[in-house]
Amino acid sequence: MDNPLKIAIAGLGTIGGGTVRLLRENADLLKRRCGRDLVVGAVCDLDKELAAEWPDVPYFNDALAMVRDADADVIVELIGGADGIAKKLCETAIAAGKHVVTANKALIAHHGTDLVKAAEDKGVSVAFEAAVAGGIPITKALREGLVGNRISRVYGILNGTCNYILTTMRETGREFDDVLAEAQELGYAEADPTFDVEGIDAAHKLAILTSLAFGCEINFDAVHTEGIRHVTAMDIEFAEELNYRIKLLGIARRTEFGIEQRVHPCMVSLANPIAHVDGVFNAVVADGDYVDTTMYEGRGAGERPTASAVVADIVDIARGNSAAALGVPAAEMEPFTVSPMDRHRGRYYIRLMVTDEPGVFADVAAALRDCEVSMEAVLQKGRSPGEPVPVVMTTHETSEGSMIRALDMIMALGAVIEPPRMIRIQSFSGGGIE
Amino acid sequence: MDNPLKIAIAGLGTIGGGTVRLLRENADLLKRRCGRDLVVGAVCDLDKELAAEWPDVPYFNDALAMVRDADADVIVELIGGADGIAKKLCETAIAAGKHVVTANKALIAHHGTDLVKAAEDKGVSVAFEAAVAGGIPITKALREGLVGNRISRVYGILNGTCNYILTTMRETGREFDDVLAEAQELGYAEADPTFDVEGIDAAHKLAILTSLAFGCEINFDAVHTEGIRHVTAMDIEFAEELNYRIKLLGIARRTEFGIEQRVHPCMVSLANPIAHVDGVFNAVVADGDYVDTTMYEGRGAGERPTASAVVADIVDIARGNSAAALGVPAAEMEPFTVSPMDRHRGRYYIRLMVTDEPGVFADVAAALRDCEVSMEAVLQKGRSPGEPVPVVMTTHETSEGSMIRALDMIMALGAVIEPPRMIRIQSFSGGGIE
Repeated sequence: MDNPLKIAIAGLGTIGGGTVRLLRENADLLKRRCGRDLVVGAVCDLDKELAAEWPDVPYFNDALAMVRDADADVIVELIGGADGIAKKLCETAIAAGKHVVTANKALIAHHGTDLVKAAEDKGVSVAFEAAVAGGIPITKALREGLVGNRISRVYGILNGTCNYILTTMRETGREFDDVLAEAQELGYAEADPTFDVEGIDAAHKLAILTSLAFGCEINFDAVHTEGIRHVTAMDIEFAEELNYRIKLLGIARRTEFGIEQRVHPCMVSLANPIAHVDGVFNAVVADGDYVDTTMYEGRGAGERPTASAVVADIVDIARGNSAAALGVPAAEMEPFTVSPMDRHRGRYYIRLMVTDEPGVFADVAAALRDCEVSMEAVLQKGRSPGEPVPVVMTTHETSEGSMIRALDMIMALGAVIEPPRMIRIQSFSGGGIE
Repeated sequence: MDNPLKIAIAGLGTIGGGTVRLLRENADLLKRRCGRDLVVGAVCDLDKELAAEWPDVPYFNDALAMVRDADADVIVELIGGADGIAKKLCETAIAAGKHVVTANKALIAHHGTDLVKAAEDKGVSVAFEAAVAGGIPITKALREGLVGNRISRVYGILNGTCNYILTTMRETGREFDDVLAEAQELGYAEADPTFDVEGIDAAHKLAILTSLAFGCEINFDAVHTEGIRHVTAMDIEFAEELNYRIKLLGIARRTEFGIEQRVHPCMVSLANPIAHVDGVFNAVVADGDYVDTTMYEGRGAGERPTASAVVADIVDIARGNSAAALGVPAAEMEPFTVSPMDRHRGRYYIRLMVTDEPGVFADVAAALRDCEVSMEAVLQKGRSPGEPVPVVMTTHETSEGSMIRALDMIMALGAVIEPPRMIRIQSFSGGGIE
């Protein structure tokens, strides 16, 4: 296998540019490591200017034409978007018997199972290391490094923008909107931050991790998704007081009902290493029956880390290495049984803003009792008659359904003047790192 | 490739037993994941009793006879020891055209380059994921996941016994000998703890990581190795006061002089996630030019995590996947140029026990000045005339050579009543996680 591997890259934005640069800058190293040249044989972007850096590389402005006309073994899709040209490009490339590498989490979360089936039928690879947690080689770890294990749970900090915002809010005491605006200025958040701050980006990645961990089809629609817009500086302060840290986590696990997938802000014990993963860093934890708990940490986005992941996939193809893209071949995948969120059990942090009238607390306690939610602790700070004051409670383990019913009753109380804030307290008992 | 892969396992101690159990317990899962059966076709141990659990598996009491007579595609060496039968077994298996999987860090640290060369000549694999950091798939991460990167530094907590001892010393305030004795009772330390507490085990693992990271031959003899016997409860207390944590780290990096490899206790900033890796856990950090910093954490030893790593190597062979065992083919390896330890530059923690006489400190300061070591801070606690008191100093960055000369001069002072204790303060600037 000493013939060069020919690579065609569609999309020359941040990641695409980084990938071409890596392949050319580290070409000698890559040749030593995989025994053959990795050649950028074609590039494609609607904006021809983006290709100007590499005048020696054949340029296309139509991605489908590139698949048809370029001499390429591998098509690298870095255009983005769950549908449209990105999807069409991958389908066309597979149909033409070419390997596909992509960093497109939305595409894989929505259409990954179908693309993998099509690729298996054609005997080509579909690889997407860069789609999950940027530079962290987590899809490889799940498909290969931990292959001997039954995975019981996989979770992580999957969105660097949210982690940056939550970290900065904690460090500075500032509020969400303020920190988001700054993150946008610094380039850590998009002009339209919806996908990031609403948890959708993390849910895309979680859906992919779930499939890899459990050998089931990807089911993005089954991810219970909440973002970080409602996290306040006050909640972060209370969390610290309770020895927790608020992190947006994606968590997938097997329950007695099926597979639970959820993305939401969590209170995590400071004793858990993931509580200390700050700023734009991502981390993924996988619990296996033999390996116990393993954690993987690194940059979750950005030109260079993402290019590192794209190139790792290309090298696997160059070396002729393959493993089922989603852990098991499509024909062997388990049907996906959704574990419903209202069957979820856990502990909860609740913050109410109440007018400080006599009897309020008795009403709240009665609502919890009526819904069979058992209180663990109460924190109340500052009393100024007539002014709203925060009341913070933590609960013992209860079901999500009971908690939601109790919150509905509490919200109806006259003295409770804004919707209660609820943050799940996430313990990871059973895993080793804690 | 739907024929079964036949595996012969030599050594049925903790890891060998765990490996057979994993392969049989998770056989269905493994078949789904790699598309063929993984069959334990033969086992071998001097003690026949250890094979009694699997009466259906052909038993050998001679490992070399097993290579010759068993119908096996892969020989798994779990006997241990840098030389002797383990080495002979691997050489014989390779010569017979069989793949080799081993968890034997001493063997690979001493003879890995030669074994890899022999295997490359024969077109078979030598795989040793289990030899470094137990269940953490770090050799795969370096060979494959980070393959696009020039690695500038790799370091980690590579010995769970030492990390357990240092963690317990910190948590309880007890001294080394006391905690070691308890660790031995609990089975976390061997009856003869030399390999662990002197840093030799960590040095074996570091030498392997160095080769993987930098594409050079393995050079165990070039590892500067110090253990943890001299770490005292008092130093741990001072470290906490200075916002450091004492960890036994193995560190390899490229310097202007060549490759530096060292294993010794370090003071690590609490802001670095590795400072929070406690107990028997291991962690490895790799810094690459594209991926920036990535960290991998998990159990470093034990029956089940190590079996997980052994099986990952077996599955790679079953899938027909391979990458150069040490990152690049033996013919492409760089010659190893040793960066000498006295050229090392860094900051230092120094603790002296002095009789509290006038002028002692002036003499110490003069010695540092004469050796061009610049003091950063001084801590002195407790003064009881006539009694020895600790004087703790930290230095600005200086060379190891200067520091050693200064310590020699200080040791010669009459008022310094025991050898100065020196612990290197390790900063990881340039890497991202800190």
